Amino acid sequence: MTEFSYCMPSRIVLGKGSTARLKQYIQGDRVLIICDPFLYQSGAAERIGANLEGCTVSYFHAIEPNPSCESVDAAAEAARALGAQTVVGIGGGSSMDVSKIVSCLAGDEGSIYDYYSGGTRTLSPRTVRLICIPTTAGTGSEVTNVGVFTNKKKGIKMPFVTDQFWPDVALLDPELTYSLPPAVTASTGMDAFCHAIEAYWNKESQPICDALAVEAMRLVLAHIKAAYDDGNSETAREQMQLASLLAGVAFSQTRTTGIHAVSFPLTTEYGASHGTACSITLPAFIRISGEGAQAKMDRLCAALGYESIPQFADAVEALMVSMNMPTRLSQLGVQEDALEHIAQVGLGAAIIQLTPAVMNQETVTALLRSIL
Amino acid sequence: MTEFSYCMPSRIVLGKGSTARLKQYIQGDRVLIICDPFLYQSGAAERIGANLEGCTVSYFHAIEPNPSCESVDAAAEAARALGAQTVVGIGGGSSMDVSKIVSCLAGDEGSIYDYYSGGTRTLSPRTVRLICIPTTAGTGSEVTNVGVFTNKKKGIKMPFVTDQFWPDVALLDPELTYSLPPAVTASTGMDAFCHAIEAYWNKESQPICDALAVEAMRLVLAHIKAAYDDGNSETAREQMQLASLLAGVAFSQTRTTGIHAVSFPLTTEYGASHGTACSITLPAFIRISGEGAQAKMDRLCAALGYESIPQFADAVEALMVSMNMPTRLSQLGVQEDALEHIAQVGLGAAIIQLTPAVMNQETVTALLRSIL
Repeated sequence: MTEFSYCMPSRIVLGKGSTARLKQYIQGDRVLIICDPFLYQSGAAERIGANLEGCTVSYFHAIEPNPSCESVDAAAEAARALGAQTVVGIGGGSSMDVSKIVSCLAGDEGSIYDYYSGGTRTLSPRTVRLICIPTTAGTGSEVTNVGVFTNKKKGIKMPFVTDQFWPDVALLDPELTYSLPPAVTASTGMDAFCHAIEAYWNKESQPICDALAVEAMRLVLAHIKAAYDDGNSETAREQMQLASLLAGVAFSQTRTTGIHAVSFPLTTEYGASHGTACSITLPAFIRISGEGAQAKMDRLCAALGYESIPQFADAVEALMVSMNMPTRLSQLGVQEDALEHIAQVGLGAAIIQLTPAVMNQETVTALLRSIL
Repeated sequence: MTEFSYCMPSRIVLGKGSTARLKQYIQGDRVLIICDPFLYQSGAAERIGANLEGCTVSYFHAIEPNPSCESVDAAAEAARALGAQTVVGIGGGSSMDVSKIVSCLAGDEGSIYDYYSGGTRTLSPRTVRLICIPTTAGTGSEVTNVGVFTNKKKGIKMPFVTDQFWPDVALLDPELTYSLPPAVTASTGMDAFCHAIEAYWNKESQPICDALAVEAMRLVLAHIKAAYDDGNSETAREQMQLASLLAGVAFSQTRTTGIHAVSFPLTTEYGASHGTACSITLPAFIRISGEGAQAKMDRLCAALGYESIPQFADAVEALMVSMNMPTRLSQLGVQEDALEHIAQVGLGAAIIQLTPAVMNQETVTALLRSIL
């Protein structure tokens, strides 16, 4: 073990029906709730907001997938117009990510472009409270200090990392995930598994995160199929949300590795969902993980009940097949002549070098070819 | 699982030699270091302070075991006289506990008696930075929001709990523990084990803490004897300090149970060290833990490599014997006619009811009699 540093200052609350107690966590009485159009139109966001009796609650519900800086600025204007004292982000990664930067901009000046993607200003200390409420069990965004935004002017999507983005409260209510369709349960749940294993085998791994990551992997393997088969299973939904939380805390300190690096082109160029784009390479990355982390992977296999890395990889792949998830790149429409390009884009993400194996044009292309 | 809440906002840094980088964590340039006379006279505290080049560093080194409110007030006066911007507590529990309240009082008015043990004032938000550096591997005080102080006027020792007490930085340097005598290594290390198991079987247990507690117990069992046998073993010292840290984080959320409750009279009336007073009842509490937590204890035994609760308890007791620790109350001078009284005092601590077994005059006396 070398020196490690750990800091995760958000208060975590997890429990069935916990959103009913949202009011006890807010600051002031003017609250902006940020969500996507679906959550608003379905009434789900308003049901959560209805717990804020006596407060002035506004909704900004124009959050799109891969949220743009323009959406961020529009939401920040809404927060300023309201004089919001608390910003609540409800959703998958996108709405929570937007709520992070909006909670900062609400008490500050200017546009996100002033602070990010070429901007040179520094955010003032945040005065508006930030509460994140996930509606999937996967992103872990409620316990990270990262927001990912798309700069449409430059046509790029990139992360914004600052300690101002740690939510004051991560409020997890498994009931919000009951209505997720099976395919979303599968892809977001396997995204959580990727977060956990990428924290665990990470070259920047550390013992606190290791302990949480192992437990997260154990929980996903034990409960994801039950959540996929029966979305109303209280136990499976609760344990999957706990798994996503633990995995989120783990990778919030270590960052991710090759799986996430390679997922970016699969999402932007082939339209795969984030969870699908990650998990499709998961078995292949497990198979090569012994290269730099044999002893640690042996301990993981033992903890999860597998005899070897190949057996573990086969089991994960079989689990994915059992949930009708793609396990071959050709299922996403990838052709052999695109593999070099996908590897190249993946290698452009610095996190790929946190993978416990040599990552270069040759090795990454070979890995991709093995699952074509 | 019922609803749980978790919050541990301190930044944790652990690494051999990490105190050499103390300066990067302080605020301002006027620093008060709080320690006990031994750490000061041995030069250890000044060696740490020497890393604060360019700063004005003062030492308050009159901290006694079971620190009194009078010591707290004297240290607070020293902090105010210096205009301290950072307070650093170095030591076992006592010095770190004092540093917590002094970092608050330094920027506030009055005496600890105004805020605690009958005082009615509320501490203002803390403006002075607080850094805690443990010199044992056991108390976990560097990652709790609790200070324990003795009110000499009333003749009582009681905890002071406030979110103001979370250190900004918990800085753990295993090198500081190399010089601990074997008996202190054993008693403080087993105190850490008690923190972990009491967090795990606690009626207020929760999944994040469970994962950390299991890992803490695994580490103590794997490394305490090596640290006892060879105080300069880098690996053993590092892993024991990590174990103490993980256990500290775990019980910071759950509190402790019967082991700690019963330890209080054994310390105050029989002079046993805190770690000895706790661990002497540990095997007996393990033996009864199945009463309310059979399934959970079965999982723990499996994770730690034991076949049953009795086998686990026997192994812990044998480990203690191998380190020349007392395992019978009579070794502390306790006589049979005192058992009822010890049980009564232990039952006066509310935490005893967090034990996963019926705790009353009859059951606690019987437990004590079993290890007389």
